[in-house]
Amino acid sequence: MAGWAITKHKIYLASASQTRVHLLRSAGLVFDAKAAPIDEEAIKQAGLAENVPPDDIAITLAELKAQKLASQKEGYIIGCDQLLSCEGAIFSKPRSEQEAAQHLEKLSGKTHRLHNAVVVFQAGRRIWHHCSHADLTMRKLTAQDIADYLAFCGSDCLSSPGCYQIEAGGAQLFSEIKGVYYDILGLPLLPLLQLLRAHGLMAIDGEAGK
Amino acid sequence: MAGWAITKHKIYLASASQTRVHLLRSAGLVFDAKAAPIDEEAIKQAGLAENVPPDDIAITLAELKAQKLASQKEGYIIGCDQLLSCEGAIFSKPRSEQEAAQHLEKLSGKTHRLHNAVVVFQAGRRIWHHCSHADLTMRKLTAQDIADYLAFCGSDCLSSPGCYQIEAGGAQLFSEIKGVYYDILGLPLLPLLQLLRAHGLMAIDGEAGK
Repeated sequence: MAGWAITKHKIYLASASQTRVHLLRSAGLVFDAKAAPIDEEAIKQAGLAENVPPDDIAITLAELKAQKLASQKEGYIIGCDQLLSCEGAIFSKPRSEQEAAQHLEKLSGKTHRLHNAVVVFQAGRRIWHHCSHADLTMRKLTAQDIADYLAFCGSDCLSSPGCYQIEAGGAQLFSEIKGVYYDILGLPLLPLLQLLRAHGLMAIDGEAGK
Repeated sequence: MAGWAITKHKIYLASASQTRVHLLRSAGLVFDAKAAPIDEEAIKQAGLAENVPPDDIAITLAELKAQKLASQKEGYIIGCDQLLSCEGAIFSKPRSEQEAAQHLEKLSGKTHRLHNAVVVFQAGRRIWHHCSHADLTMRKLTAQDIADYLAFCGSDCLSSPGCYQIEAGGAQLFSEIKGVYYDILGLPLLPLLQLLRAHGLMAIDGEAGK
């Protein structure tokens, strides 16, 4: 059995994020992935300057990615975004190990929130959106803890705003995690599959749904 | 950096479960794994016959595994167990796809609980134990849904009592998941690492901690 698809409609993910592509493929969804690059940093900064709540910034980013791909492709287009907020600040992916160390210093001993937005476009318009949260508390980290952690993770720490993968070395950072696995990875998967089921998602054999 | 260990003491996992070994290694713990086979089914049935709560059965099973290995090895010995309970019944791993289909029929449309126990032995005695829960709600599954799911998962459905891996096709089964990723995989990792840290767990280079 090849997986799950919507008969006569292709499904696209407007992202090339390896984490999201892997999660959706593992879950059995039959889809194509295509990056829809937008100037995320400019939109984040503009949103912050206008005091737009992080949830709304994440939804806007997810929507713009889906919209961009919807102008090129027909079918169901999934756009998603994840933001990390802590004490009013929004964190972007670190660009160097030095910047990662600064992120971890700021997150140490505090609870931060992951805002996870997913938007679906069909026939050129948004038909659904959803936003969910995960709250993660880092233990109090010493400078040595941070240096040890970064030495263990290497460049993997650059792949997320919080500098961690909970399924890897990230486990060393936390005292408490409240949130569903899928949300921490950046994709509210259960509500998305429920929406797609309501639109006819069904099991397919071979390449039938592609 | 090789990972985290307790200087001058080896750490052992009293289990050969690939999921738990992979989770702990990915988190950077330096340890050896060795299966400590006990007659789990007999202990479960005896506990159920005496109306022992699932948490206590899980702790007993984790303890017996750790104790068995502690009679052979020195150092810190980790034992763990996971039970699935639903409406008063305890589920064991299915032995065939047919049995998996029966499990899924029983779990369909209901919330089940995963009971996750971890026990640590040192110098031949139990020094710590912890039990945590995850609650997962399966959507109402038709016979066709179950057949499709089992066709997709193949023999992977035999590797857990609930017949799923949430990081794979299992995502197709659920309407809601409440619980931490580590608990769903069967190891309360954050409390365990906290206990080991209190006993001197620290970052090590090379093979120093082995």
